[in-house]
Amino acid sequence: MADKDVLLHPGLDKAAGEEFLQEAFQIMLEEGLRKGRDVSEKVCDWKEPEQLQQILDLDLKDSGEPRERLLERCREVIRYSVKTCHPRFFNQLFSGLDPHAFAGQLITDMLNTSQYTYEIAPVFVLMEEVVLKQLRKLIGWEGGDGIFCPGGSISNIYAMNVARYHRFPECKQKGNWELPRLAAFTSEECHYSIQKGASFLGIGTDNVFLVAADENGKMIPADLEKQIHQAKAEKAVPFFVNATCGTTVLGAFDPVAEIAEVCARHKVWLHVDAAWGGSALVSRKHRHLLDGIERADSVAWNPHKMLMTGLQCSAFLLKDSSGLLQRCHCAKATYLFQTDKFYDMSYDRGDKTIQCGRKVDCLKLWLMWKANGTRGLEQRVDRAFAYTRYMADEIKKREGFQLVKEPEFINLCFWFVPPSLRGKEGSIDYTLRLGKVAPTIKERMMKKGSMMVSYQPRGNQVNFFRQVVTNPAVTRADLDFFLDEIERLGKDL
Amino acid sequence: MADKDVLLHPGLDKAAGEEFLQEAFQIMLEEGLRKGRDVSEKVCDWKEPEQLQQILDLDLKDSGEPRERLLERCREVIRYSVKTCHPRFFNQLFSGLDPHAFAGQLITDMLNTSQYTYEIAPVFVLMEEVVLKQLRKLIGWEGGDGIFCPGGSISNIYAMNVARYHRFPECKQKGNWELPRLAAFTSEECHYSIQKGASFLGIGTDNVFLVAADENGKMIPADLEKQIHQAKAEKAVPFFVNATCGTTVLGAFDPVAEIAEVCARHKVWLHVDAAWGGSALVSRKHRHLLDGIERADSVAWNPHKMLMTGLQCSAFLLKDSSGLLQRCHCAKATYLFQTDKFYDMSYDRGDKTIQCGRKVDCLKLWLMWKANGTRGLEQRVDRAFAYTRYMADEIKKREGFQLVKEPEFINLCFWFVPPSLRGKEGSIDYTLRLGKVAPTIKERMMKKGSMMVSYQPRGNQVNFFRQVVTNPAVTRADLDFFLDEIERLGKDL
Repeated sequence: MADKDVLLHPGLDKAAGEEFLQEAFQIMLEEGLRKGRDVSEKVCDWKEPEQLQQILDLDLKDSGEPRERLLERCREVIRYSVKTCHPRFFNQLFSGLDPHAFAGQLITDMLNTSQYTYEIAPVFVLMEEVVLKQLRKLIGWEGGDGIFCPGGSISNIYAMNVARYHRFPECKQKGNWELPRLAAFTSEECHYSIQKGASFLGIGTDNVFLVAADENGKMIPADLEKQIHQAKAEKAVPFFVNATCGTTVLGAFDPVAEIAEVCARHKVWLHVDAAWGGSALVSRKHRHLLDGIERADSVAWNPHKMLMTGLQCSAFLLKDSSGLLQRCHCAKATYLFQTDKFYDMSYDRGDKTIQCGRKVDCLKLWLMWKANGTRGLEQRVDRAFAYTRYMADEIKKREGFQLVKEPEFINLCFWFVPPSLRGKEGSIDYTLRLGKVAPTIKERMMKKGSMMVSYQPRGNQVNFFRQVVTNPAVTRADLDFFLDEIERLGKDL
Repeated sequence: MADKDVLLHPGLDKAAGEEFLQEAFQIMLEEGLRKGRDVSEKVCDWKEPEQLQQILDLDLKDSGEPRERLLERCREVIRYSVKTCHPRFFNQLFSGLDPHAFAGQLITDMLNTSQYTYEIAPVFVLMEEVVLKQLRKLIGWEGGDGIFCPGGSISNIYAMNVARYHRFPECKQKGNWELPRLAAFTSEECHYSIQKGASFLGIGTDNVFLVAADENGKMIPADLEKQIHQAKAEKAVPFFVNATCGTTVLGAFDPVAEIAEVCARHKVWLHVDAAWGGSALVSRKHRHLLDGIERADSVAWNPHKMLMTGLQCSAFLLKDSSGLLQRCHCAKATYLFQTDKFYDMSYDRGDKTIQCGRKVDCLKLWLMWKANGTRGLEQRVDRAFAYTRYMADEIKKREGFQLVKEPEFINLCFWFVPPSLRGKEGSIDYTLRLGKVAPTIKERMMKKGSMMVSYQPRGNQVNFFRQVVTNPAVTRADLDFFLDEIERLGKDL
């Protein structure tokens, strides 16, 4: 058939496509959502990489496959994936599935547009502003600016870049060579994206001064002051302080108000990495944890974690209302941000980022918020705190369980001391043996598929579990199961 | 109710949630997909920002809204959004909706996991490798490395960072201050992310040397050589050359093989930004456009554009098999990339990126590929070329239409010269008036909702249309309509 005749008919079968979609949707509901949330089903049907490779037959070939085989593939993908919506999934800082957020995600995917201009995303340009404004309001800012980013790491790295540009706008053209050596400050408990950002931005990890944290994992403001003096003595220019609200392991909150004092004294940009802890701002009962955050210059906050918005939903928020973010990142591409459009071009917001195409991340959060209201979200946050409180109390009652510290947030960090080690704290190989307990129990629960929880060492503390519950579908029965199961899996160790 | 009693029951109504999802899905199909692909419906129901703000009532409140209102909100969001799957949407470098890719996206969203470790994303860790390997195979590489990124801009910026690290690994710790001034090279027609990347990485836009392009928009290798000498004369160290395969406006392909010669001579990293043009590699008929790409050190390729995978799906591909990407970006967080896991930890790939949480972008491409096979995707690519060929021929036949240049790829760039300007090329205000034609026609089509196409100026060429057809649902009737409609909307200008 000649080229022009090919074009007489569509190259896509709409009806067959829709039928496939309907079927895939039902499989997703049945295999993913219903089984995924059923405690009698496995959190994950664990297979070793080589074995899974064989089962899945992933290789891509010249010819396509028939409908039935493709639907079976959908089932397989779901079957061997981790069910993060399972009530016994406690492994990450996210879990559960909110139906409204998920519906928002479906619609986002179908509309498949990019967030850069009003003409291509009219609803989402307006919606993003409203959602970001609402988040800023919870921080305590009236004005301000912001943008959704592909994850909290990139939000943190944006903060560092904007802080640099704010202090040394010539950097955009000239690069770091024309600048004095810069110094960034963050606590030793911070998220690794601060280090990654320093490398990426050409600042270097050697120029990240690590501030000491106290025994609860909180930055010590006096040490921050000391590090700033140290940097100045080394002829470096302090330009960026990162305070963390909700550290990854312990869930600690740096004392933002005190840190803000130090920053004000030294005229240094204060960024708050509240990717994890930011959602506590929604709770009138718990928002005090972030006291002082309104004094920050910028904040990173990931609703996809505690608020259950679904990956990715990460807000980078700025106090500045002067267009700093735009000036810092803009390139003014004439084919996208034309200056002779027929509408108010200030609605074309895409030049605020280093991305070009940018996924729409606001609809899922907006729809979920409309469905629950701020008070509904608050209940969810309070519920998460209640889980942790309950667990901490239970742990104190149970033999062999030992809290790493009293939880300040919803990170429940604890050791399980198996019977053979109890009362042997003084013995020579105690910590060595204790450090192997969590990995072994983790291996057993994975292979059994009964639940998932994370563990890690911290400084000179050997491996301990970090359990996090954000999924409101979880009940006390799941929490009790969790502790019982740890005992069952670890009793012979 | 006391905290612990609250926890006796789930805080989420599963049945109601599933019901809402079912209904939202049907609305999405009806309002989005069916109407969205129906040529008798509008591409976009255009409203000015203030008006749309009023209609949508976006503000977030304390209390939630009832089910019916939320479903109505879903309808509204769809109604006032642009239908990028509409057969008369020609505005961006993406369009259309592939049912298999979309099904893959749905499943991805439901599983809601992050791509960093094997334990949390077993299927997707393996799948990402297979898909990236297949893309590399099409480039002509046997080994190699890579990762999916949140968009082509970030892929390009990764390339620049990896090139810097490859040459000066000390940069990661020390920052740019310990390095000589660096020089990057790209053509004046390149994507703006190269400039954005230079700023972001602390290199500075002044250190991006713009290489001249010929009248077809292709980089002139002799000028690249000249610019490299110039940079060296200025004591800068050439470390990165970006060649573009498929420029944004003209769709031009830089002569990669010749550029590779220059890079080899000067030992400079060659990156190919094939975000747009990469998909031509799938076509045996058209892949010659990228001849020489196998000599590149890295490639950016966005299947979410021409292959219709849905935003976002952007691959950053490397020739290196030594772990360069990992060494460049890793931070070795002990709470995520534990070194005492029970499985082969080389499957934990998340430390290759600067992100922490990372969306799964591979399933949609994989499922679409399984459904169509490489040959099916090839047909789609060939069909896109056929659209453009047909249109270019039609344009030559029609009075008042004028090609900016013969299309090399699927960017159809042309002016519409309205009757009042025909034959007046010599008149004093000809270009001024011609430059206003495209914006006016664009305004009219937007307000009418009949179609969408982009326009832009380029150098001293005034505004011209850039039409791109990637959506296989488009037929010749839609293409004829497009030209007729331009005539209708512009005949009085």
